[in-house]
Amino acid sequence: MAIILGIDPGSRITGYGVVRALGPFKQEYLGSGCIRVAGDSIGEKLKIIHDGITQLIAMYHPDQVAIERAFLGKSADSMLKLGQARGVAIAAVALQGMDVAEYSARQVKKAVVGTGAAAKEQVQHMVKQLLKLQGAPQADAADALAIAICHAHSFTTLNHLGGATRIRDGRLRE
Amino acid sequence: MAIILGIDPGSRITGYGVVRALGPFKQEYLGSGCIRVAGDSIGEKLKIIHDGITQLIAMYHPDQVAIERAFLGKSADSMLKLGQARGVAIAAVALQGMDVAEYSARQVKKAVVGTGAAAKEQVQHMVKQLLKLQGAPQADAADALAIAICHAHSFTTLNHLGGATRIRDGRLRE
Repeated sequence: MAIILGIDPGSRITGYGVVRALGPFKQEYLGSGCIRVAGDSIGEKLKIIHDGITQLIAMYHPDQVAIERAFLGKSADSMLKLGQARGVAIAAVALQGMDVAEYSARQVKKAVVGTGAAAKEQVQHMVKQLLKLQGAPQADAADALAIAICHAHSFTTLNHLGGATRIRDGRLRE
Repeated sequence: MAIILGIDPGSRITGYGVVRALGPFKQEYLGSGCIRVAGDSIGEKLKIIHDGITQLIAMYHPDQVAIERAFLGKSADSMLKLGQARGVAIAAVALQGMDVAEYSARQVKKAVVGTGAAAKEQVQHMVKQLLKLQGAPQADAADALAIAICHAHSFTTLNHLGGATRIRDGRLRE
């Protein structure tokens, strides 16, 4: 019955999604949304991400946290900005005594849609179906929910198969 | 008589240097060193940077913090890792209620050596001379001291010229 927090970090919007894993392929929706980054300085902006993640952990008491592995194809400047947001999010989780499991976009798509080559819209559609949501969540929130669902699959499947203590598909350890 | 903390963030070693600005071109050495990043997971590693910066601020009570602007020429993977370390360092400073001033490598070299095209060894030599150090500091610590000296120049020169409240060369605001 683990509670899983999924994070989709970004320098402007950091999406989050929280699910409760009820079984290998059954999750309950607990919440989702966006941390919107605004501020006059880089320090103010990054503090918003730190404070947001810290508040989410205090609010939902997740047992596990999962994050998407960064896709390495963008410009140097966007990689730097993504890295800054991502680093702050991961450190905020670590400061609460937890580690993050990392999954590639391909792993997330495969877990949610069944194919690693799925389109973004298919992922959003399946997130809505799997979690029995009335409306479509905001795009970054949907991505974060997909990451949480992906982690729930890896985690509960392995537990189901005999109490494995390590994640095989995701990497709990870098 | 402002105390300035300079930070040179990196995913493996984050250098730091602390100086007291005594006048436009006079600084006193207070301390320098490296935060060495080690750990089994990305969270553990980034937490070391957060905790290190937090401890430095508690120890030296800097009035101002300066950081080098990232050079955008490396691989996507190294930009991501640098961004993560940099983001955690900046957020740790912001959590203590301070902003960071950013300077390009060129501005730092110009402030310390007199030319923006100076070699790394020249910067290290001048840091040792300017701060009257007995030995040569470790390379990352020397870079961080150079950043602190660069900020001291901008800051104290402007103050000297009539109490300017904003940094002109460095950017206190992004």
